[in-house]
Amino acid sequence: MRLNIKVSATDGQARRGQVTTARGSFQTPVFMPVATRGAIRGLSTHELASLSAKGGTRAEILLANTYHLMLRPTADVVEQLGGLHDFTGWGDRHMLTDSGGFQVFSLQPKTDDEGATFRSTYDGAKVKLTPELAVRIQERLGADIQMVLDVCAGLPASTTVLREALERTVDWAARAKAAHRRIEDQSLFGIVQGGDNLELRRESAQRTVEIDFDGYAVGGLSVGETREQMMESLEAAIEHLPSDQPRYLMGVGDPLSIIEAVARGVDMFDCVLPTRLARHGTLLTSEGRLNIKRAEYARVTDPVDPDCNCATCVNYPRGLLRHLTTQGELTAQILCTIHNLTWILSFVEDIRSAIESGTLETLRAATVQTWQQMSPERKGEGFPQ
Amino acid sequence: MRLNIKVSATDGQARRGQVTTARGSFQTPVFMPVATRGAIRGLSTHELASLSAKGGTRAEILLANTYHLMLRPTADVVEQLGGLHDFTGWGDRHMLTDSGGFQVFSLQPKTDDEGATFRSTYDGAKVKLTPELAVRIQERLGADIQMVLDVCAGLPASTTVLREALERTVDWAARAKAAHRRIEDQSLFGIVQGGDNLELRRESAQRTVEIDFDGYAVGGLSVGETREQMMESLEAAIEHLPSDQPRYLMGVGDPLSIIEAVARGVDMFDCVLPTRLARHGTLLTSEGRLNIKRAEYARVTDPVDPDCNCATCVNYPRGLLRHLTTQGELTAQILCTIHNLTWILSFVEDIRSAIESGTLETLRAATVQTWQQMSPERKGEGFPQ
Repeated sequence: MRLNIKVSATDGQARRGQVTTARGSFQTPVFMPVATRGAIRGLSTHELASLSAKGGTRAEILLANTYHLMLRPTADVVEQLGGLHDFTGWGDRHMLTDSGGFQVFSLQPKTDDEGATFRSTYDGAKVKLTPELAVRIQERLGADIQMVLDVCAGLPASTTVLREALERTVDWAARAKAAHRRIEDQSLFGIVQGGDNLELRRESAQRTVEIDFDGYAVGGLSVGETREQMMESLEAAIEHLPSDQPRYLMGVGDPLSIIEAVARGVDMFDCVLPTRLARHGTLLTSEGRLNIKRAEYARVTDPVDPDCNCATCVNYPRGLLRHLTTQGELTAQILCTIHNLTWILSFVEDIRSAIESGTLETLRAATVQTWQQMSPERKGEGFPQ
Repeated sequence: MRLNIKVSATDGQARRGQVTTARGSFQTPVFMPVATRGAIRGLSTHELASLSAKGGTRAEILLANTYHLMLRPTADVVEQLGGLHDFTGWGDRHMLTDSGGFQVFSLQPKTDDEGATFRSTYDGAKVKLTPELAVRIQERLGADIQMVLDVCAGLPASTTVLREALERTVDWAARAKAAHRRIEDQSLFGIVQGGDNLELRRESAQRTVEIDFDGYAVGGLSVGETREQMMESLEAAIEHLPSDQPRYLMGVGDPLSIIEAVARGVDMFDCVLPTRLARHGTLLTSEGRLNIKRAEYARVTDPVDPDCNCATCVNYPRGLLRHLTTQGELTAQILCTIHNLTWILSFVEDIRSAIESGTLETLRAATVQTWQQMSPERKGEGFPQ
């Protein structure tokens, strides 16, 4: 099903919108938490559903990883358990599955025109993923949005390598589109590649749009380039994407990259960053990153962020989080994950308000001020485990 | 503060009651979940507070371990953060701290009349715990109920060893009572020892009651004896405990032992069993233990227990729990812990109702039928880590 975005406000290239799907609708810009194997690490989906930013913004769409689920418990099992919505307990809310490509290409597969052959990280078995199979598997997983199988080249890369990745991605995208069958209740997104080469980005966007997808993602970023290079590549791609459909920047989730990308017209984001940082005791706050393991917090009764209304900030002193984190207690990971995801919901809520009130520049300047010390995710950061 | 139990119904020796404390009151029989280091492993206190059995029974009192907290983050830090209630986020609900004795004696300390000297499991530092120090530390931790430092002998043990443990426990109990200062808002419980020797159990109970405590515990059980021996020893002790004060069986929490002990007049229980089993994927159900890792559950859409109203049973199929548990996902531990603690709350709720309606014998027979294959906890099971 083709997705349309109804834009209710703009501020420069940034847009505040609503995407209508077969299931219902979700608000944009939106951040999608990552439930790698069907669960966020350290947070149940029923508690995720209960998280709420001050203004009432909740998680509306969840991402799950096709690579992991196709191997364990298999798409067959997920389908038999009612598809990802029932399987994960996320119920009637939205879900998106990636194609598995990003993980597969992290494994340096043997790739030919037909597909990519790799060894399972679970049991070493040889597995081949093709564009058609990626569609079939995601059909059975049953998310609302599918992604095409693309070829993602790490950066820096030669023009030859980027060109090859582009050609194969476009070829596979056309095959995925032809294989797409659940057109009434599943949407299929194309993915723009091209690395940090602006010409290739433009060409990739144009050729992907010619195939005509239900929505468009920009992939192959946050894989080794600087944030400046990322934004230039993003701009080159977005220039050629239709304005009436959602745009999704894959695997990017640090606050500065989010707001810079929103300012360039991106609507959707996903990233393991907030949950991964949480598991290591790094908290997102209005004053930047906070490493809760530091000894200075041992005797602090204040919450992580006095302005935050998450259960962690409402109920627990920094001293407890410091204690549980340094002792490696499971519950520390739960509490830090609740905070970081609520913080991201609040940040996105602030971005939405800023677009509505035409003050995104002010928020962007403040975000730069706070987060400029935080580099974009390192290569492979999007790859779980 | 002396605690009194107001008994509203009895069935044989079993009693349904309410214990009034300086903080308020809690219903009995009661099961106390264990927050070893200030947190239940795999469940935040705010989510624990939200758990509810079908009839509305909630967790009303939480146990924390003095041994762990005195070493990390130290009683000084906990006190500075407002005491355990604020530190743990458990707020205005009840808390109990053990004396640290059980853990210390698991470390085979050097013991003399003055106290027990041991090496910290955290950093190897030499630490000495005395009856007076255990009271002081628990004063600073600030729970509503303190336990005296006792000497717990593993079973089987010779009469000489049990006699020595009894004498030292009684001697130390008198010193703890003399050291007890926060008498307005903290209650101090004595502990009956005596192993599996019924004469020693009676003598220990009598001499402990002579010292005059705010409530009484029976310790040194579930340390290697059979359930039959446990119950005989319990009966011998209870015979000499006052009927107007609460009785607490320490470290016992399997369903069969709980109902057998309730039938003998016990009011309070604590155990790591439900949370520890949960972390290993073993679930408590109305049909007994269920190992969710078994392959037969991979494709099952039913919840763990269709009669259970916990968030896990309401939201997730067995197939998801099986998948997450076999994959070692954190969230599996969260979901299984929610279920097991809710199940115990429900079980205790059923026991309360049965006492009120005079049908405890029927529930006991059914419980024996279901759980007879489940042996009592093995020696050391109560020792976290």
